[in-house]
Amino acid sequence: MTGPGEEMHALVERLYPLCRSITGDGVRATLDIVGEYIPLQVHEVPTGTQVLDWTVPQEWNIRDAYVADSTGRRVVDFAASSLHVLGYSVPVSATMPLAELRGHLHTLPDHPSWVPYRTSYYKPEWGFCLAQETLDALPDGDYEVCVDSTLVDGHLTYAEHVVPGQVADEVIVSCHVCHPALANDNMAGVAVAVFLARALAEQRPYHTYRFVFAPGTIGAITWLARNAERIEQVKHGLVLACAGDRGRLTYKQSRRGDSGIDRVMRHVLAVSERPHQVNEFTPYGYDERQYCSPGFDLGVGSLTRTPYAGYPEYHTSADNPDFVSPEAMADTLAVCREAFSVLDRDRRYVNLSPYGEPQLGRRGLYEALGGRSDTKQAQMAMLWVLNLSDGEHSLLEVAERSGLPFDTVAAAADALLGAGLIKE
Amino acid sequence: MTGPGEEMHALVERLYPLCRSITGDGVRATLDIVGEYIPLQVHEVPTGTQVLDWTVPQEWNIRDAYVADSTGRRVVDFAASSLHVLGYSVPVSATMPLAELRGHLHTLPDHPSWVPYRTSYYKPEWGFCLAQETLDALPDGDYEVCVDSTLVDGHLTYAEHVVPGQVADEVIVSCHVCHPALANDNMAGVAVAVFLARALAEQRPYHTYRFVFAPGTIGAITWLARNAERIEQVKHGLVLACAGDRGRLTYKQSRRGDSGIDRVMRHVLAVSERPHQVNEFTPYGYDERQYCSPGFDLGVGSLTRTPYAGYPEYHTSADNPDFVSPEAMADTLAVCREAFSVLDRDRRYVNLSPYGEPQLGRRGLYEALGGRSDTKQAQMAMLWVLNLSDGEHSLLEVAERSGLPFDTVAAAADALLGAGLIKE
Amino acid sequence: MTGPGEEMHALVERLYPLCRSITGDGVRATLDIVGEYIPLQVHEVPTGTQVLDWTVPQEWNIRDAYVADSTGRRVVDFAASSLHVLGYSVPVSATMPLAELRGHLHTLPDHPSWVPYRTSYYKPEWGFCLAQETLDALPDGDYEVCVDSTLVDGHLTYAEHVVPGQVADEVIVSCHVCHPALANDNMAGVAVAVFLARALAEQRPYHTYRFVFAPGTIGAITWLARNAERIEQVKHGLVLACAGDRGRLTYKQSRRGDSGIDRVMRHVLAVSERPHQVNEFTPYGYDERQYCSPGFDLGVGSLTRTPYAGYPEYHTSADNPDFVSPEAMADTLAVCREAFSVLDRDRRYVNLSPYGEPQLGRRGLYEALGGRSDTKQAQMAMLWVLNLSDGEHSLLEVAERSGLPFDTVAAAADALLGAGLIKE
Repeated sequence: MTGPGEEMHALVERLYPLCRSITGDGVRATLDIVGEYIPLQVHEVPTGTQVLDWTVPQEWNIRDAYVADSTGRRVVDFAASSLHVLGYSVPVSATMPLAELRGHLHTLPDHPSWVPYRTSYYKPEWGFCLAQETLDALPDGDYEVCVDSTLVDGHLTYAEHVVPGQVADEVIVSCHVCHPALANDNMAGVAVAVFLARALAEQRPYHTYRFVFAPGTIGAITWLARNAERIEQVKHGLVLACAGDRGRLTYKQSRRGDSGIDRVMRHVLAVSERPHQVNEFTPYGYDERQYCSPGFDLGVGSLTRTPYAGYPEYHTSADNPDFVSPEAMADTLAVCREAFSVLDRDRRYVNLSPYGEPQLGRRGLYEALGGRSDTKQAQMAMLWVLNLSDGEHSLLEVAERSGLPFDTVAAAADALLGAGLIKE
Repeated sequence: MTGPGEEMHALVERLYPLCRSITGDGVRATLDIVGEYIPLQVHEVPTGTQVLDWTVPQEWNIRDAYVADSTGRRVVDFAASSLHVLGYSVPVSATMPLAELRGHLHTLPDHPSWVPYRTSYYKPEWGFCLAQETLDALPDGDYEVCVDSTLVDGHLTYAEHVVPGQVADEVIVSCHVCHPALANDNMAGVAVAVFLARALAEQRPYHTYRFVFAPGTIGAITWLARNAERIEQVKHGLVLACAGDRGRLTYKQSRRGDSGIDRVMRHVLAVSERPHQVNEFTPYGYDERQYCSPGFDLGVGSLTRTPYAGYPEYHTSADNPDFVSPEAMADTLAVCREAFSVLDRDRRYVNLSPYGEPQLGRRGLYEALGGRSDTKQAQMAMLWVLNLSDGEHSLLEVAERSGLPFDTVAAAADALLGAGLIKE
Repeated sequence: MTGPGEEMHALVERLYPLCRSITGDGVRATLDIVGEYIPLQVHEVPTGTQVLDWTVPQEWNIRDAYVADSTGRRVVDFAASSLHVLGYSVPVSATMPLAELRGHLHTLPDHPSWVPYRTSYYKPEWGFCLAQETLDALPDGDYEVCVDSTLVDGHLTYAEHVVPGQVADEVIVSCHVCHPALANDNMAGVAVAVFLARALAEQRPYHTYRFVFAPGTIGAITWLARNAERIEQVKHGLVLACAGDRGRLTYKQSRRGDSGIDRVMRHVLAVSERPHQVNEFTPYGYDERQYCSPGFDLGVGSLTRTPYAGYPEYHTSADNPDFVSPEAMADTLAVCREAFSVLDRDRRYVNLSPYGEPQLGRRGLYEALGGRSDTKQAQMAMLWVLNLSDGEHSLLEVAERSGLPFDTVAAAADALLGAGLIKE
């Protein structure tokens, strides 16, 4: 039986091998596949465009790259994994002794069978990443090195998908799409975002949800630079990354620490009884760095399972599709859906009968038989909503203060709204 | 030897059997007895009077009620206990088989020997409450049922007793008087209130103390509706209920959570070393629900021993005079007296010599011999009062911050006031 | 090898025997010695001068004092220790039986070999302090008592030393100099202050540092009275006392509890991993009482090792130079230097590129090779400073929130300032 977990995992496996970077055809191919699931608006931003403090770099593409020994055998081969080439490597075609080549080789001595992920976006450089044990097996001698890449004026590519809501206020969900053959970081995040968008589209949500698929850092900065007029509509946001490993959920709060998404995520995680951790904001990690820079200071948190740089497989070839599980992705998706469900229903109401309790009984909202000690949750929820609906407390605060489930509180508010006892 | 505990218990025993409800002669009889202890101003509010969102209901009185078997033997008899009839039962006189009668019978299967307390104030209904074991012993067959009650236009009755203070600012003490044969809930609260009023009257307290004896919910709502102009004079309040069981004291804070009575009760309970619990506000329980509705939001807390619905005997025939103890009532009374003593002396003062310490020695307020390390509490209290008397901190805050007993702090303030070093 | 600890201890030993009081030549002799280390501005304030609520008292000087037995042997002798005479004793010359003399003798029954320190500044009195075992050994009989003191119009003496800073905003360091032969209380504080002043003078500190050496209470009050116009320049302050015992460091916060010095001391003590304690403000202890009186409410805390009255040797002859250690004084000095170093560098900056992160790489502030998980502390510190530099957070708050050492944060700020990315 196939659930969303398996479907998301299949999407991860399909996206995984592509050679993504902060620009280039790997990103386009990735977005093409995502576009088969949800319609995307793809943006191409020319090299040289000024975006905030940054400039869109030249576009990088690569056809082939290898290190070959004197017999012509490829001992390191881009065709086997896009991790093997240093991201943004400038072209090179040369023969050199191993001693000279070593300065361009990156390994992980502590994990000798794993290939690291390395880049050099802004300093012209070429290089290869390989397993330490591969390097150790190389005899001295001359090697042919080839990076058949281009680094020329072109574009930076990112995409958006919008689920229209009842109001123009937006929630952004942002995923980086710049990492090559890494599964958890971040094809799992992309897959969860895709299925989240599809789930939201099945209803008409209260907020408008905007999904941003963009290269890390420069992509988010480009989006922010090009959406200055939209920023004040962005009420909440979530950066999705590392969404599929088997570790517990981690929510990293926005810089503000008490923004709506922070409160919602804390509540949803707390009541769900899932193992989880809530962390303070830090200005490193993923693109929450940009959304939460002091000039924007958006209410954008970050949801991961094991967080940024928190697992040994991070940024290595060991972050492959086996490292992510259908169950973990399904769980991440479920938490997002629960959180957005709360976010969409959280409101502040005003009690229209604030002097004493209104008589719920004659409105059919209170059981007729008095004296019993087991007052029902639904009735307690109505009393809580009435008591705290002074325009200061939202339903989420009612849920937190009362200890009642948000759903029960929201249902009570609906009943009271229907009876004309509260208004928005 | 007879102390206030025994006197209060005797009052509970006397009030206990009366058939009280939210209206009717049982309330009047109860207030007549209370009036033998403290003078009462009794109010009669006509049926149909609009009180906030509610309407004063018809008045209910009852002469007799029973279920009799085919031999004429009363198997359930109102004369034995006023709990046996569903509160506000409409009149009925009929004969019916047990099967049909069952729909009108209320029992407690988990406590088969206890009779529950049940009401149906706002939905016309009749019924009987009885022990499960009584019901189980009833053979099938026809039964005669009789509720000889009247439900006609009349009045809702409540009473007030005022202890005049030095200022018009009021503290209200509110007790519900609508429960029939239940001792802890709330004849114990009534008894403590009565003896508290007598104790306060022996001095001239700072605040004016207003005792309200009214039916639960509709009575408090009626009082609030008829005292709109007085509300802003009500600075503090305490709802007294369940004042006599053997459990530890429980203070439930006002909705504001930091009102004067909240701070005073927390302090008095904490320094008293009595077993106790301080709870957050909840919008159910007793009439604090009404006083703390968001439109009023008064600084009214609730003092009980075991709280609302927190003991198995709650709202059953097991809440009888044996369930309450003279010692527990005396203890509840003592805590109220201590709390009101603090409340009456808590003030904010302004240090008239705020630059450096004033020279206490030449005013005879500081010991002459210097160098000793055991500065006396009285002197420390003066330094604390001087230091915190900036108009922002009350004496209770001085006591809390200094860890000194409130009495010591208040005595220091009196000495400083006498020396002209602080003013109110 | 001689470090500052030994030098400070030598200064304590030299100052220790002098007979100090709140006025008189003992204070002058003390300041003379201090003046050999750091230049002092000495102030002489005439008897009768009104200072805030107080009046400068008559000046007290003493040449000799003793109790002699019938053979003429001095059984209590001021020449042996200045503690033996009650501070501010009025002159006396008489012979009296032991029974009468006892009313003028002060001992410590719990520590029979120690001599207590006692004074009677404002009530005319004479007396002697002696060991209980000395008293116990005195046979009955007549004794000659002599206090050859003068109490006449004169002056109160205090001194200041200023280390000029880059700004006129001042930090005051205040030590009481009124205690006679007591080492920890407060010649150790004086010695630490002296060496702190010398250390600060070796650089040009940011703040102007003002050292006040004054008698306790009346001296601080005199300084405050004569510096009314300077008060608003005093941004921070530290009262130094009990600076040399072997106990752990204790910082007592200012009345405000969150003043700059409070935050700095808490941080420095917390990150230093020294055993320490941070206490709330209390209005007794040393001259923080005056600086933190509500009219002034200055951000002045108090640094001691074992606090005021917290050790048995307090105000006894057991507080001698052996009671203080060079290591403890060196440690107190080091903490003060660390704290003032933070205080002097703590600033609020404004990020000039607050929208998104500025591109640190092209400014040479970020490593070129991407993908590694071990982001360096220096880079993290830059991201933290950029993120929190919104004019609301100081570098110390950045250090606290990030968990990074203040030095790392300050260095990051310097780098960002150099790159024009932040401004003050």
